[in-house]
Amino acid sequence: MIDDLPRRALIVGVGLIGGSIGLALRQRGWYVSGRDMLEARAKRAVEIGVLDAVGDDPEAQVVFIATPVGSVVEEAKRELASYPGSDRVVTDVAGVKAAIVEAVDHPNFVGGHPMAGSEQVGLDGAHGDMFVGATWVLTPTERTDPHAYARLQSVISLLGADVVAVPPARHDILVAMVSHVPHLTASVLMDLASQSAEDEPVLLRLAAGGFRDMTRVAAGHPGIWPEICQENSEAIVLMLDRLEDSLHKIRDSISSGDREYLSQLLGRASKARRNLPSKVPPPYRLVEMRVPVPDRLGVLAEVTTTAGDLGVNIFDLEIAHSQEGAKGVLVLIVDAEASSRLERALGEKGYKVATTPLETKE
Amino acid sequence: MIDDLPRRALIVGVGLIGGSIGLALRQRGWYVSGRDMLEARAKRAVEIGVLDAVGDDPEAQVVFIATPVGSVVEEAKRELASYPGSDRVVTDVAGVKAAIVEAVDHPNFVGGHPMAGSEQVGLDGAHGDMFVGATWVLTPTERTDPHAYARLQSVISLLGADVVAVPPARHDILVAMVSHVPHLTASVLMDLASQSAEDEPVLLRLAAGGFRDMTRVAAGHPGIWPEICQENSEAIVLMLDRLEDSLHKIRDSISSGDREYLSQLLGRASKARRNLPSKVPPPYRLVEMRVPVPDRLGVLAEVTTTAGDLGVNIFDLEIAHSQEGAKGVLVLIVDAEASSRLERALGEKGYKVATTPLETKE
Repeated sequence: MIDDLPRRALIVGVGLIGGSIGLALRQRGWYVSGRDMLEARAKRAVEIGVLDAVGDDPEAQVVFIATPVGSVVEEAKRELASYPGSDRVVTDVAGVKAAIVEAVDHPNFVGGHPMAGSEQVGLDGAHGDMFVGATWVLTPTERTDPHAYARLQSVISLLGADVVAVPPARHDILVAMVSHVPHLTASVLMDLASQSAEDEPVLLRLAAGGFRDMTRVAAGHPGIWPEICQENSEAIVLMLDRLEDSLHKIRDSISSGDREYLSQLLGRASKARRNLPSKVPPPYRLVEMRVPVPDRLGVLAEVTTTAGDLGVNIFDLEIAHSQEGAKGVLVLIVDAEASSRLERALGEKGYKVATTPLETKE
Repeated sequence: MIDDLPRRALIVGVGLIGGSIGLALRQRGWYVSGRDMLEARAKRAVEIGVLDAVGDDPEAQVVFIATPVGSVVEEAKRELASYPGSDRVVTDVAGVKAAIVEAVDHPNFVGGHPMAGSEQVGLDGAHGDMFVGATWVLTPTERTDPHAYARLQSVISLLGADVVAVPPARHDILVAMVSHVPHLTASVLMDLASQSAEDEPVLLRLAAGGFRDMTRVAAGHPGIWPEICQENSEAIVLMLDRLEDSLHKIRDSISSGDREYLSQLLGRASKARRNLPSKVPPPYRLVEMRVPVPDRLGVLAEVTTTAGDLGVNIFDLEIAHSQEGAKGVLVLIVDAEASSRLERALGEKGYKVATTPLETKE
């Protein structure tokens, strides 16, 4: 698969994430060009080794749109329209996906969201190992071209990230729950404590490690948050409603002296937190799964999001063409322990899977 | 002041906190005896060097009640009643104060709350440096005997902690805001995410560092939390109401597209979080403040909580008797930079303060 990899990438917007992608690709031998709305920043990117050159690259086969969320659709459409016959794959890194994917609406555009780097800001915070071990969400749809997806998956795996495929709308709900709403909650807790502390400076000296941990994310610059909240408002409002509802139940249980309710909730949460998967990946044994697929829309999205639903990590993905006309074969590289779950789930959806062991991933 | 220190302490309840107090005092040359509702645990405490002996100690001049919160009042009353003529000072370490202080109601009882060790559990987690640099709240009232308070302050300073004096009811509001409600919120966020993840295991792989930080405290055993929430229910319900209200305003601002509201809140919170005082103490220059005080109830509480309100750390406190009959002198050792604020505040309340520099604290 490595031999098929394109070796030229274009990065639009060289902030923290765009800059880190550039560094990571160049460290792996790629030629990377890029541009930025701030000319000085693009020049700086060349100076510090993030880019080989400032400017467009007609030969780039992968284009990362890493601008603020509000410019993604425009920039993606522009890159796709500039080279209409090309098979270049265009992706983005914005924290909200459904609206963008729907607006761009192109087989060679795959929405993406690397779950990394949210607390730092700016090009000078960029580093080439930022994505090693990180989860990188891709949001294929029925319209997604399988070859474009496979190429992007390979590039992102090259950066060291674990790709998880999730439908765009579900991605937005999930990040509202594990990122946006927690961030807002941290800010609200910090703001309430600080308001009380205006009359009582002693308050903040009583804040121990737990409070510091809980409010750490609130220290970041507001930056893109109002924009993210606007883009993902529907999911965030839904999740804020659930949070309010849960807090209100806690309030009522405390007010009425119902200790049992509280014990059960704290017990469930404790167990769930202790089981929260660590970012350190286990040593995987890998298998190759070959999945013959019909040549119809949505097959790629169905197979990859089925894996995502099961928490099965796809380390690599390739499209092989079978001899029999209108069919192809998806070749997935996955963790051996997870493969039987995936095989069963795909079987239930009518796919026939052949699985063979591979050597251990380094 | 060191020469005046008592050298015998009694600890009732040798869990994490009681055990750490025992270790810390013995490391500093004290003779420490203690008891526990679990006889085996008291024996174990002797084995691992937390206690010199199991049992009561009529000569102990400081008694730490470190039992679960529900037993504190009974144990404190028992210790005070056993030696009615004694000047022993009795304190506790429970996370809720107003109800306990009101119920014990004795001049030689001073409520206490060391802000340390909340995430670990059990005697075997005890260590003698647990309180170094930690904030230790004491809750003197109008009834508190100044000599008892001064002796306790010295002992706690000896353990390396910074004493902050706060009225009991205010303490309860403050810990609801910076400890109890944040803990409940972390558990609720973890529980909501985990419930959603039952159908979608992929969810928890999207949880990045911010979510991990925010939910870390939820990993602890429910343990004493239902009891704490019950004991501090009034303050917790009040603060949960404020939190719900703030979250609801955020919800409405997002729903109505009011980015300005969100920007301002996030900006305030960011600034407040960056200014959250670190636990690492600066190198202090110290001064001695001598405050002549009338011999009336409440003076000690007024002076110490005035310092607490201003965030002024009292490193040591002594009661000296003046020559002029019914007056005394409070001798406070405080940070030089903070002394003028405290002097001004005490001046406004009618105290005349004489301040002289001391050598730098090591």
